[in-house]
Amino acid sequence: MFSKETYINRRQVLKKAIGSGLIILPGNEEVGMNYRDNIYPFKQDSSFLYYSGIDTPNLFLVIDVDADIEIVFGDDLTIEQTVWTGPQESLAISLEKSGISAIQPLSFVEAMIKNAVQQQRTIHFLPPYRAAITLKLSNWLGIDPSALAKKASVALSKAIVAQRSYKTNEELTEIEKAIDITAAMHLKAMQTARPGMTEYEVAGQVEGTAITSGGQLAFPIILTVNGQYLHHHAGGNILKEGQMVLCDCGAENKMHYAGDMTRTFPVSNTFTTQQKEIYNIVLKAEEAAMATLQPGTLFRDSHLVACKEILIGLKSLGLVKGDLDEALAAGAHTLFFQCGLGHMMGMDVHDMENIGEEYVGYTDTLKKSTEFGLKSLRLAKELEEGFVLTVEPGIYFIPELINQWQSEKKYSEFINYDKVQKYSKFGGIRIEEDFLITKDTYQLLGKPLAKTAEDIESLRNY
Amino acid sequence: MFSKETYINRRQVLKKAIGSGLIILPGNEEVGMNYRDNIYPFKQDSSFLYYSGIDTPNLFLVIDVDADIEIVFGDDLTIEQTVWTGPQESLAISLEKSGISAIQPLSFVEAMIKNAVQQQRTIHFLPPYRAAITLKLSNWLGIDPSALAKKASVALSKAIVAQRSYKTNEELTEIEKAIDITAAMHLKAMQTARPGMTEYEVAGQVEGTAITSGGQLAFPIILTVNGQYLHHHAGGNILKEGQMVLCDCGAENKMHYAGDMTRTFPVSNTFTTQQKEIYNIVLKAEEAAMATLQPGTLFRDSHLVACKEILIGLKSLGLVKGDLDEALAAGAHTLFFQCGLGHMMGMDVHDMENIGEEYVGYTDTLKKSTEFGLKSLRLAKELEEGFVLTVEPGIYFIPELINQWQSEKKYSEFINYDKVQKYSKFGGIRIEEDFLITKDTYQLLGKPLAKTAEDIESLRNY
Repeated sequence: MFSKETYINRRQVLKKAIGSGLIILPGNEEVGMNYRDNIYPFKQDSSFLYYSGIDTPNLFLVIDVDADIEIVFGDDLTIEQTVWTGPQESLAISLEKSGISAIQPLSFVEAMIKNAVQQQRTIHFLPPYRAAITLKLSNWLGIDPSALAKKASVALSKAIVAQRSYKTNEELTEIEKAIDITAAMHLKAMQTARPGMTEYEVAGQVEGTAITSGGQLAFPIILTVNGQYLHHHAGGNILKEGQMVLCDCGAENKMHYAGDMTRTFPVSNTFTTQQKEIYNIVLKAEEAAMATLQPGTLFRDSHLVACKEILIGLKSLGLVKGDLDEALAAGAHTLFFQCGLGHMMGMDVHDMENIGEEYVGYTDTLKKSTEFGLKSLRLAKELEEGFVLTVEPGIYFIPELINQWQSEKKYSEFINYDKVQKYSKFGGIRIEEDFLITKDTYQLLGKPLAKTAEDIESLRNY
Repeated sequence: MFSKETYINRRQVLKKAIGSGLIILPGNEEVGMNYRDNIYPFKQDSSFLYYSGIDTPNLFLVIDVDADIEIVFGDDLTIEQTVWTGPQESLAISLEKSGISAIQPLSFVEAMIKNAVQQQRTIHFLPPYRAAITLKLSNWLGIDPSALAKKASVALSKAIVAQRSYKTNEELTEIEKAIDITAAMHLKAMQTARPGMTEYEVAGQVEGTAITSGGQLAFPIILTVNGQYLHHHAGGNILKEGQMVLCDCGAENKMHYAGDMTRTFPVSNTFTTQQKEIYNIVLKAEEAAMATLQPGTLFRDSHLVACKEILIGLKSLGLVKGDLDEALAAGAHTLFFQCGLGHMMGMDVHDMENIGEEYVGYTDTLKKSTEFGLKSLRLAKELEEGFVLTVEPGIYFIPELINQWQSEKKYSEFINYDKVQKYSKFGGIRIEEDFLITKDTYQLLGKPLAKTAEDIESLRNY
């Protein structure tokens, strides 16, 4: 945990921003995989953790802003539970560390919330993403489950985003720890993968590296020879000479901050010429986007700079034709780069995504596009000092998409489909790193990891 | 998947057992960890999988027993979803493999169920364990979420238990694959662990071994120097000379069958004399229990045989005194062995636990005890050919429990507390293996793994 003052201050800022009413921040519960007691690794709700620092399940933090009372509802373990789990720090001690003085049994939270409903007080809650919380809030607030997200508090959403978006130095230290574990995971993959191994085998080593470092996975590992599919997880594919492995993985460190990096490397010792050509376009796109990173830049523009660089590179290879600004405006690049350039990163790998991209990545005046490509851009708004974000351009040859668009003659004024078809078994390449926006420019977070095609090949010198 | 005939036959048997009405078997959905799209590894519901063989999320299997119609409700991926996940086998092909001919869009299941409710048909469903399913069924069936479990179908629960309890040869082949991966995980732990490493580090290697073998974890790894706490997961404790590591882990293989084994090994090259003495008592308890395994034995009796053996051993060391049959009847052994001897194992590591232990491990006439110790015995009923179960006796010195009972003078006629206190930092030892009940006796499943103290020490010869 951070210092007591950190948590007290975070709650003070939140209360001031909200002004009045009741704030409900539910902690997460355990989730049974195939029966109640066979649980997934526990993952605390990030906002609950941000304001309380407490990483155990079955808690509610309720802040009565008007009365200036902060209560955690929860129960200590009984001795019979201790027999199974081992002793756990008492709630009183945990709360002392975060400067919260009031503890109530978990079963009391229902009455408090129902009472507030009866008194017609304003109740602030975030849109729930776990069905267990939906069930409870729906019942206590008397709101139909399907309507709950719409009734979530915009004021609370905006207030939390306004705090969590700016990373403090103590948070940056934790984020860099997570990124350094992440880099170690990538090194492991690049040093371990050999022709004949399955994706599973390499992913097992990568996951082991995260756990070995006292962390866990920030998200399921993407490690595949089918890197053209953006979130294709490790499977049973056997690594073959001539293929590439796209590995997109990230650790969550002990303080529950995330890292998120991607490297693409050849299964063989070296990239083929074709692979290296595409690789260098992606690298140039990343560098071009990086050069735009500073306070005041619209990240949407950083995204478009990368897209343009991809078009320039692909035109030089003959896959794209025509006026590139027109191609960009039309969206022709989305045949190759179907998603967004990056996202905020912090306690969540897509930071605060549960609260809503309309607040995290957009503003009241800058709304998200509904177009293919841009609609997957999670962050578009003006960058500010203290933001932490990923930059992750890629070029993906997705046969299903190429075939469909070719049959529709989509963007045929900009795409040389005959040439593109020659890349139908190419796969995909993505390069991803994590950056802090500083006062004037940006800073790469974490220790640098091999990134040029040549540096990666030197790690593949087996 | 198994053969089409396997699934057709399983559903035939089920329909015959249920006789009339509608059977709803919901598949599981993805669960977001900290936001909707950052998902835990998908885990299919085992009964859904048993009757359909399909391992993808967001499906419902509905069987209209009266009309003899089997429908899977679900949706194929759109091309835009394929961009993210890669192509997936179409539902039509999956269903062809399991012999189900009717597919309907997922959104249609609500109308079908609401319609059946309106027609006052008997609707059979299992008690839900995932809140997302509770939300849906509650809404569609018009039953309050808190009442849903009580309205679950006893007939369906019993019918499914009656099928899944008896493992076929093709299932046994899969179970043995899972157990062999499990044994490899244990070997890795015993060969890797060194003084100075953290529990995390060893657990990372163990988990990596499961994934490397194309499997996943059947349950969260228990790997700790605090083995006295029954389900204490790996943490940041540093392994020290003189301590023991208790590792209880299991793989789930590709066909989603589980393995579950426990070994306890010394951090040093060898056990201490005190450790070896306790180890050998646990080993004798396991062997005594194993000797009882055959059709017709009440597993409750197997449990008590192991408990008695533990008392005998501890009396020889002076920790227990008095008449051992009286001590057993009183429950004095539960100071050292607080849980049950074992459980059914299959697609779930605690097989069918979501359906209810009252059906899986007990009968209408043999009810579960509410006493400490016996109330944690998940399986008590008469063993039958085809059952697969674990045998996992242990001796656990839990300081909190010892102190509390000593202060209450509990069982003081049977327990030498002064002597027991000398073991307060001992930790815990468990030995666990998986067995098949055969026609006349039992069979150890999987390739044998080092089990005696001496064999384990030979693996620790670093």
